[in-house]
Amino acid sequence: MKKVGIISYGITPFTKEDQKIETVLLKSVKNLFENNSSVDRNDIDAVLVSTNNNAKYLSPVLSEMMGIQPKIAHSIESLCNSGTNSIVSAYSYISSGLADMVLISGAERYDSPGQILEWDNSRGEYKHPIYWASIFTKSYKREFSISNEDLAVVPVKNHKQAKENPNAMSSKTYSIDDVINSKKLTDDIRLLDCSRPCTGSASIILASEDIVKENTEQPVWITGIGQKTISAGFTKNMSLSSMESTKLAGDTALKMANRKISDIDTAEIHDAFSVCEPMALESLGFAKPGKGIDTIKELHDTNNFKINPRGGLIGSGHPLGATGIAQTIEITQQLQSNANKRQVDNANVGLVHNMSAAATSSTVLVLEK
Amino acid sequence: MKKVGIISYGITPFTKEDQKIETVLLKSVKNLFENNSSVDRNDIDAVLVSTNNNAKYLSPVLSEMMGIQPKIAHSIESLCNSGTNSIVSAYSYISSGLADMVLISGAERYDSPGQILEWDNSRGEYKHPIYWASIFTKSYKREFSISNEDLAVVPVKNHKQAKENPNAMSSKTYSIDDVINSKKLTDDIRLLDCSRPCTGSASIILASEDIVKENTEQPVWITGIGQKTISAGFTKNMSLSSMESTKLAGDTALKMANRKISDIDTAEIHDAFSVCEPMALESLGFAKPGKGIDTIKELHDTNNFKINPRGGLIGSGHPLGATGIAQTIEITQQLQSNANKRQVDNANVGLVHNMSAAATSSTVLVLEK
Repeated sequence: MKKVGIISYGITPFTKEDQKIETVLLKSVKNLFENNSSVDRNDIDAVLVSTNNNAKYLSPVLSEMMGIQPKIAHSIESLCNSGTNSIVSAYSYISSGLADMVLISGAERYDSPGQILEWDNSRGEYKHPIYWASIFTKSYKREFSISNEDLAVVPVKNHKQAKENPNAMSSKTYSIDDVINSKKLTDDIRLLDCSRPCTGSASIILASEDIVKENTEQPVWITGIGQKTISAGFTKNMSLSSMESTKLAGDTALKMANRKISDIDTAEIHDAFSVCEPMALESLGFAKPGKGIDTIKELHDTNNFKINPRGGLIGSGHPLGATGIAQTIEITQQLQSNANKRQVDNANVGLVHNMSAAATSSTVLVLEK
Repeated sequence: MKKVGIISYGITPFTKEDQKIETVLLKSVKNLFENNSSVDRNDIDAVLVSTNNNAKYLSPVLSEMMGIQPKIAHSIESLCNSGTNSIVSAYSYISSGLADMVLISGAERYDSPGQILEWDNSRGEYKHPIYWASIFTKSYKREFSISNEDLAVVPVKNHKQAKENPNAMSSKTYSIDDVINSKKLTDDIRLLDCSRPCTGSASIILASEDIVKENTEQPVWITGIGQKTISAGFTKNMSLSSMESTKLAGDTALKMANRKISDIDTAEIHDAFSVCEPMALESLGFAKPGKGIDTIKELHDTNNFKINPRGGLIGSGHPLGATGIAQTIEITQQLQSNANKRQVDNANVGLVHNMSAAATSSTVLVLEK
């Protein structure tokens, strides 16, 4: 396959602001062109918009506003991993030769209709994601004798790391007690265990090898891709304390990149809720089953930003269609040694884990400099 | 690039029925597996859903209902050419090597939110597509001295052809007078000049060369692809009596296929309104500027089904996200000599033209047996 890399990125602050989706989209694309002024918009062959917003024809709308006339233009939706689905699609356009340069732009409003999967009637009135997160949490705690205090280290760590991310929605730090004493939403979920939907946008440009080398001195390459969908409803054939789609996507991505999990220097993990971070770390192989919290505690205690350096979804906020792209930007900045106070030492190989709807589907990307 | 072909297809009748989008989607996929029982659903690497419906996560939903666990799964939206955008995306997944077999399924309800582009405020209250169609019609009639009677041959021909299509919404034939005397919607548009939104679904499976040869004795290959987006709003830099995006997409597709327009034996043309058929024929090179109606009249008079054999959008109905896939199925059936009373003689090379929003974007595919 042809080599595909990242030549620029742009991002907005993640907020609760009430802005039109077109305005939000445009802001990260403008930031992208400011970040790399060598990119000629006449060279952009495809514009892919990642969103759960119900507005139509957003790719041509964005293209017209930016003065781009692409060949390929459409929106992509897959709930919370729309962003990495769009990145993989862009990769395939370039790798197949149908495009040489692709702009991927993800955006969401705080009131995104992608927050609830209306289809899943097996959930009855319990369609809000806090209910599957609650079931996962109860199951994980029981199976591995994990306490609420143990899990609370995830938001404590991720809010601490988000404080160094100028675009994160959170700028506060919290203690274990703050998490435990925050509003109880279900038996097993407190308010501070949750990532929050927000308004925000993130954009990147992918290109073929020659164009990457012409346009940036700090290329970052996508070397591994893995995706898997197990089901849509989470009660179908799934373990409730591990993530099968994540395991399969991770194995595929590492194999494609010819890497082991121990080669990964930093990773963005889809911590939609506290329990998701240890479950994903275990399913990806960063930790043995039930030992993810130990890994997270050790990283927190040593102030090591390896996992979710930008603060994860819990610290940064979760603008659904933008999240996978924002994760990819963070790993890009880490590999370029551009992550300021969030910088992880010796970051040469990075991983992005982005999932939807109770891990019924997952995407894993491996990035290298 | 790797060779990509079609191994099965399925379609539903196009109706005004009030059905859930998931039900509509499922029906054409079931028909697809009935049409080629050799396809193993465990081999499906990607499921792409083409729709303007606001329901989320439809690809995993469809996959779960069909017992498929794909790697790649998402929805694609680009108003009326969502269908061919999805086909091109599937092509790139296969051509890049990320997938070997892709299911593409398009569906829409009669009340699709994709009918009106809310973003285009330059249209004021005139956002319904009949207004751009009306402006195109007035402009085309003036520039080339075309009468309402001349244009009426388009719906007369397409309803006649749709009568031989068992899945078409229309089963009536009309005279030139019927068209002229049908309800006047604007100065230049009558009711029978319009395609009608409807409920319907169409699905195909694309695969890589070896898999195509294993799974069908009548392979049809996608040999040419062209896409272009000029803008989102139709008042931007556009001629009102030709289709620039169609011209550019057509040129690209023919060049990729190493074909001339005179090689095309049959074509599906996006006749959203009467005027679109001659304009598209001229922009693609089937006729000289202003002469598209002469070509259409000659085909009609000789009962030649070459253009829009299934009755086009005007005769078949227009379930937005399914239309481009239904067009591709028609050309596939023609090349396989499976089109019954609609069959065009010596159909070896076919073309699909699918566009959105006043031809602000177009896709053109070349198919060969």
